[in-house]
Amino acid sequence: MTSVVIIGHESAGFTAASTARAIDKQAEITVVERNPYPLYHPCGIPFAISGELPDIKVLIENTKPPNIELRLGTEAKSIDPDKKTVKVIELKSGKTENIPYDSLIVAIGSYAFRPSIRGTDLKGVYVVRTVEDGEAIIQATKKAKQAVVVGGGAIGVETSVALRRRGLEVLLVELMPHLLPTMLDQDMAELVTQRLQKEGIRVLCAQQLREIRGDKNVRSVVVGEKEYPADLVIVAVGVKPEVRLAKEAGIELGPTGGIKVDRYLRTSVPEIFAAGDCVETQNLITGEPTLSQLATTAIRMGKAAGENAVGGKATFTGTFNTVVTSVHELIIASTGLTTSAAKKAGIDVVSARVRMSNKPHYYPGAEPIYVKLLVETGEHKIIGGQVIGTEGVAERVNLLTLAIQKGMRADELADIEYCYMPAVCDVIEPLTAAAEVVLRKL
Amino acid sequence: MTSVVIIGHESAGFTAASTARAIDKQAEITVVERNPYPLYHPCGIPFAISGELPDIKVLIENTKPPNIELRLGTEAKSIDPDKKTVKVIELKSGKTENIPYDSLIVAIGSYAFRPSIRGTDLKGVYVVRTVEDGEAIIQATKKAKQAVVVGGGAIGVETSVALRRRGLEVLLVELMPHLLPTMLDQDMAELVTQRLQKEGIRVLCAQQLREIRGDKNVRSVVVGEKEYPADLVIVAVGVKPEVRLAKEAGIELGPTGGIKVDRYLRTSVPEIFAAGDCVETQNLITGEPTLSQLATTAIRMGKAAGENAVGGKATFTGTFNTVVTSVHELIIASTGLTTSAAKKAGIDVVSARVRMSNKPHYYPGAEPIYVKLLVETGEHKIIGGQVIGTEGVAERVNLLTLAIQKGMRADELADIEYCYMPAVCDVIEPLTAAAEVVLRKL
Repeated sequence: MTSVVIIGHESAGFTAASTARAIDKQAEITVVERNPYPLYHPCGIPFAISGELPDIKVLIENTKPPNIELRLGTEAKSIDPDKKTVKVIELKSGKTENIPYDSLIVAIGSYAFRPSIRGTDLKGVYVVRTVEDGEAIIQATKKAKQAVVVGGGAIGVETSVALRRRGLEVLLVELMPHLLPTMLDQDMAELVTQRLQKEGIRVLCAQQLREIRGDKNVRSVVVGEKEYPADLVIVAVGVKPEVRLAKEAGIELGPTGGIKVDRYLRTSVPEIFAAGDCVETQNLITGEPTLSQLATTAIRMGKAAGENAVGGKATFTGTFNTVVTSVHELIIASTGLTTSAAKKAGIDVVSARVRMSNKPHYYPGAEPIYVKLLVETGEHKIIGGQVIGTEGVAERVNLLTLAIQKGMRADELADIEYCYMPAVCDVIEPLTAAAEVVLRKL
Repeated sequence: MTSVVIIGHESAGFTAASTARAIDKQAEITVVERNPYPLYHPCGIPFAISGELPDIKVLIENTKPPNIELRLGTEAKSIDPDKKTVKVIELKSGKTENIPYDSLIVAIGSYAFRPSIRGTDLKGVYVVRTVEDGEAIIQATKKAKQAVVVGGGAIGVETSVALRRRGLEVLLVELMPHLLPTMLDQDMAELVTQRLQKEGIRVLCAQQLREIRGDKNVRSVVVGEKEYPADLVIVAVGVKPEVRLAKEAGIELGPTGGIKVDRYLRTSVPEIFAAGDCVETQNLITGEPTLSQLATTAIRMGKAAGENAVGGKATFTGTFNTVVTSVHELIIASTGLTTSAAKKAGIDVVSARVRMSNKPHYYPGAEPIYVKLLVETGEHKIIGGQVIGTEGVAERVNLLTLAIQKGMRADELADIEYCYMPAVCDVIEPLTAAAEVVLRKL
């Protein structure tokens, strides 16, 4: 009987446990989770802040895979790879215990990163990571009037919208020249900025947060040369892999700071696998090491790690960085490389952007949908896609991801088969239209 | 200078003319179109009948490719392949003319088929094909009270909903055991039937229309052994390829009755191409000849034929039968083979159906989405997919079409990369969930 221990019961850990359980009915599976609740959905927090969810508690799910031992409120303190044990502490009682394992999966996740500037520890400064963070922000919105959100990635954008919905004045600050810099090119990001501005959100790009000021409570932020009043500050500059435990156990880290794994999710230490946000993976287009830190990646890694922890040979080779976010009715999704990422990777690209309609122009309520397609100039393979519209956006980007995965060229995308019906979509599929335009430029 | 003549200015003809024009700036391109208007969208007619469109006239588009000669109200009477001329008649004046061609594209389309039973010529019996048909039906709905729609394919279903929206009693009759028989399996079709019944539409399946009764005006229909009162009858039992002209010119037809073409859309007669509803194509899974008769297929054929008419070598090899329809908020789409089509083709299949959510269960307004996946038992390749839900349905079916085209197995579909964000979609992609379930059955 195999004994599997999993550290962490978020997307990766939960999926690893479910998968191992489904494959090996005999294995003894123990999951240790620091949180006092079994599972929560961090990506839902902005929608709890906005008030779209009735209560932030709905993000907590009282679930676990069947027939596993789930130890809540229990933190893994250290791993002994020689004895093959994990030392855990029950946080409430302080009781420690060494749990033996045949296979161990480190699925401990990530933490929200705070930049090393003055004032990030002031009262009124929050990150958006845990249910507790979300609860504290919701409380704070009841008195706060002027919010500053630092970081124009998906979480920063979603939280800006959420705070604005709560009636706060919102200033969104991004260090890079445009919002959603890892997802979008400048021209596509401009559509997002316009939509935010329409909601009354102020957007400042290419501006660095220098300091957060206040006494006990936050009072203002210094961005570039200017000081802006603020009684609520959200720091959404990204998450970092949680690697202390792995590092101390002698597990090798990669250049990104995440745990290094092979295609079977094996770490450098025998019988120890890793999955989820704490893991370094590979960008499947450039081959460069990367941190994916998406729930979907965590699930896919968890599946493979769970299978392999009970003797399987499942692989996870990397990611195309397929991401979606939204601003009210506007859905924004992307996959593959942006123009600047391609440039950085030394890949010459040709791109085209089309503005199409989600329904025929004669159909009431037809809305625009924008597709930007990036094609490398060598073999004319698709290497990136960005879509902004009000429906069918995420699904189109998923199709583009598959197209990239299958090494499809622009001319092949221009000729894909698709369905049409006026109440649902237009007779020209926006993806094929974008491919046609890019073809003319190649 | 090449002289290209195109017969028909609907989806195939229009696209052929545009493509030829874009590629060959010198070619002389003449399109003859029987209708007095340049282009119309037949798929929009049910939504004009329903009143969703402000006026059926919005379906007529006053457009043509730049720099071509478009002769409206002009019918092609005969083709002389030896002299390479098309004899046309201007319908208004009766004037005839022989137009010489270097390349000819027959894109003449299809017509709505009326079964050879008594009464189909009575007043009050309509097909849904042209703008004039649509106008006549809209007029008829102003007095009619009891409609019978014969044919439970997409047009029949859409027209039933449209007539019900106009306040008529509607009985929908289908010969096969369930609605949308070429798109869906019985269990998926049941969801459509239920949705129609919720609107108060009566659905009769596995029942044959035997006779339409009346004097001058329709009074009733006989279905199976029973007589049902009717003052408006819609016959929506399919369209047939318009092939008289081709046949008389000695162009070979295929076993389905459509014009036979090769992968370059060449007919059996030199320099004559064909595209659109009048053409027989191939089911890309079974290899069987088939009539696609979809606007999307016509466009793809038109593109290839247009390119080849001016010396190109573009190919169109066949179709996966990717189709979408809708009933109010419910979108219904499918691709590939149904279980019965697979059986007929001698392909053993395993299928799985999942009911998932389009958004996380905690997100307000989450709606169910059903995915049925068909996998052949040999190599476990996907050969069919059916999706019913309220959003992202058509786009998911397009992705499945690409998966089928790329010969993907169920385990590969289960592991595709996709994006997630609570306001847009759930963390488990319904397509991968269906693939997981089917994998467990293989």
